[in-house]
Amino acid sequence: MMRYNIPMKQRARSIAEKTRRADDLIAAAEFVAVQQGGIRYLTLEMVAEHVGIHRTGVRRYYASKEELLLALAERGWSTWRDRIAVVTEGLEGIGPKQVADVICETITAQPVFCDVLTHVPLNLEGDVDIERARQYKKEAFSVYDDIVRMLVQVSTMTPAHIQSLLTATLALTSYLWQVSHPTPTLAELYRQVPSWGHVALDFEPRLQHLLEACALGMETC
Amino acid sequence: MMRYNIPMKQRARSIAEKTRRADDLIAAAEFVAVQQGGIRYLTLEMVAEHVGIHRTGVRRYYASKEELLLALAERGWSTWRDRIAVVTEGLEGIGPKQVADVICETITAQPVFCDVLTHVPLNLEGDVDIERARQYKKEAFSVYDDIVRMLVQVSTMTPAHIQSLLTATLALTSYLWQVSHPTPTLAELYRQVPSWGHVALDFEPRLQHLLEACALGMETC
Repeated sequence: MMRYNIPMKQRARSIAEKTRRADDLIAAAEFVAVQQGGIRYLTLEMVAEHVGIHRTGVRRYYASKEELLLALAERGWSTWRDRIAVVTEGLEGIGPKQVADVICETITAQPVFCDVLTHVPLNLEGDVDIERARQYKKEAFSVYDDIVRMLVQVSTMTPAHIQSLLTATLALTSYLWQVSHPTPTLAELYRQVPSWGHVALDFEPRLQHLLEACALGMETC
Repeated sequence: MMRYNIPMKQRARSIAEKTRRADDLIAAAEFVAVQQGGIRYLTLEMVAEHVGIHRTGVRRYYASKEELLLALAERGWSTWRDRIAVVTEGLEGIGPKQVADVICETITAQPVFCDVLTHVPLNLEGDVDIERARQYKKEAFSVYDDIVRMLVQVSTMTPAHIQSLLTATLALTSYLWQVSHPTPTLAELYRQVPSWGHVALDFEPRLQHLLEACALGMETC
């Protein structure tokens, strides 16, 4: 009733407004994750507080913490693609080591994405309903395909090798991020026994070294 | 009072008995983890039920699920070392590809260990008290050092390369195990869209390929 009477402009503004608020909540989640030292410490209450709304207000946009984090992961994928596009612009014929460096440099620029990568297969995809999981997979695979295309175009590597290197990237990034961001108990232990901490920390140099090894090794496998 | 009157044999038997029961609970946890499709589905109740005792009986040996799983991880490390010792017996001068194959073959023989590797840095080490975390680190590093020594002894690889390869192993194994053992929602999605499942599944061949690439690439880095 009266639906046709709602002015188009107002409806559009309302949709734009909703999209903006949904985006604001993702940005707030990223901020809180950095502030708390990891998304494992994040709650919807913290996110709501950061944007100055009630917890129930968040639920109008995201039904659960898992849905919010999955949206954050989606955003992370597309930001990663955009960064790779910028960094590879004008490059051609780069070798495996340089491809590894491009991947390392762009993914480590997104620490919350590095963190959420562990949680996606472990909890997030399984804790939302199947249609939401399908949407995430579609989005993530579409970006993944873009990244493969871009890296194949600027490098001497085959699509199969780029794909394997991206699998290694997701594995190495998520594991190394977690071990290099210890819980308070472990951080204290590393302070007491520095040699243990030495093995766990140094996220970026270790990631870069292992990605370069992997990329170079693909060629001789 | 009267402590010196307790017969030595009985006390020893009681300690042996306690050790055996603690071991039985780890074995039961492994059984339940396999049966449930992952340790994320395991509860102390399930473990108690499997050995036919009350849940409070488990708590006499392990104060929490986290303590039980950390003991299971410790056991996994020493079993892994023992497997590597058997497989490398009599070998000498093997190259990086064969070292990767030894690692892959021995670690994939322990699926529950592969699974628990994700949970150790993410939750377990941080959810127990610092002394328990210290004990775990001591145990795990001691086995890790044994593995490095054994692999250096039988191969042409340097200790630094073996250490990097082991870091890559922990990362690749834990990530690939999780994505290749999807939740029921994701398993249904992979049934509907086989191309997505294709990327996620095939745990062992993908691990082997990436470990070989990594090991070979170390030499040229």
